Amino acid sequence: MGELQRRLAEFAAARDWGPFHTPKNLAAALSVEAAELLEIFQWLTPEQSAAVMSDPDGAHRVTDEVADVLAYLLQFCTVLGIDPLAALDAKIDRNETRFPTPGTVSDPR
Amino acid sequence: MGELQRRLAEFAAARDWGPFHTPKNLAAALSVEAAELLEIFQWLTPEQSAAVMSDPDGAHRVTDEVADVLAYLLQFCTVLGIDPLAALDAKIDRNETRFPTPGTVSDPR
Amino acid sequence: MGELQRRLAEFAAARDWGPFHTPKNLAAALSVEAAELLEIFQWLTPEQSAAVMSDPDGAHRVTDEVADVLAYLLQFCTVLGIDPLAALDAKIDRNETRFPTPGTVSDPR
Amino acid sequence: MGELQRRLAEFAAARDWGPFHTPKNLAAALSVEAAELLEIFQWLTPEQSAAVMSDPDGAHRVTDEVADVLAYLLQFCTVLGIDPLAALDAKIDRNETRFPTPGTVSDPR
Repeated sequence: MGELQRRLAEFAAARDWGPFHTPKNLAAALSVEAAELLEIFQWLTPEQSAAVMSDPDGAHRVTDEVADVLAYLLQFCTVLGIDPLAALDAKIDRNETRFPTPGTVSDPR
Repeated sequence: MGELQRRLAEFAAARDWGPFHTPKNLAAALSVEAAELLEIFQWLTPEQSAAVMSDPDGAHRVTDEVADVLAYLLQFCTVLGIDPLAALDAKIDRNETRFPTPGTVSDPR
Repeated sequence: MGELQRRLAEFAAARDWGPFHTPKNLAAALSVEAAELLEIFQWLTPEQSAAVMSDPDGAHRVTDEVADVLAYLLQFCTVLGIDPLAALDAKIDRNETRFPTPGTVSDPR
Repeated sequence: MGELQRRLAEFAAARDWGPFHTPKNLAAALSVEAAELLEIFQWLTPEQSAAVMSDPDGAHRVTDEVADVLAYLLQFCTVLGIDPLAALDAKIDRNETRFPTPGTVSDPR
């Protein structure tokens, strides 16, 4: 993932896109790409949505939008110095305390 | 990242959230979390947005939303069998052809 | 609707919110509010989503988010001098040509 | 606005789109269209965003996306029996209490 962040940073630098890549603009672009992914599913039933990868064109579109979402998420994190994997790891730890499973003796911390 | 995908899958399975995690619902949730990240920036100037991590409360909120976006992106990919890093790597390759830099002899493929 | 646009403009002016209400910021806020409306539905089945107004709390949340979406849409239109009703009327005209119904003799234009 | 809601309902009925127009799907479509509006502004400076209507192509794109957002908002409201103007009127009333202006004697209710 670090390697992809490096490739994305070089790609943007080579095209002088740095001034456009404020955190605000990258957050907007991330949100727009996430909506484009959702657009593929908006009229599908739950069952159709589960079968989206069985059609080559659908699979290509979905994979392409996943790449765009990840690209803007990583560029956002690079610009602000956030480690997304560490952020998620810490969040899962917190959620395990917030949403205990039925059989769990709740953590007294 | 594979380890995070495994933790997220176990977390959802332990809470019987599987039936809710259709690709359509996860795409909607991803889009909602991306909008929550954008919400932090919506009234900020570009300059204020660049300084968001210097405030501890702002830094915590941003990092937390990044974790939520990544969590739904990874769960979406797990459910559909997509490798997000490979998807992005292939996309950067394609974009290098689509957006040549000024000094590049354009690739004849 | 003009009356609501006037109330919204006075409300913002009385609080000195004008400098924040650039078209870009209002478009971001509109998108964030639309995502908050979607959030109410993200884990619901189609059937549950159709029954959302039968629960008073659900009905209140949905109505409140509809108001927020409309508020930002109208403020966006006020700032840019767009008449949203005329815009939609013209769009439906265009769509009637783009998506003819089965029994329609297609318009040769 | 009631006339536009009627035209939209007839348009959808003539194309048998009713089964797709669950509140959940319409909320997703509304969110996607709001993101398409935001997309026009995502790389613009605040100043450029304020001048978007001076370019005929930009003006057309913005007006077209406004129409799409309003179309899905109205269809969502029709399906759930919500009056969007009444919803917004009530919301402004509530906000006048929540966000009093500096010179206002705060309402004791």
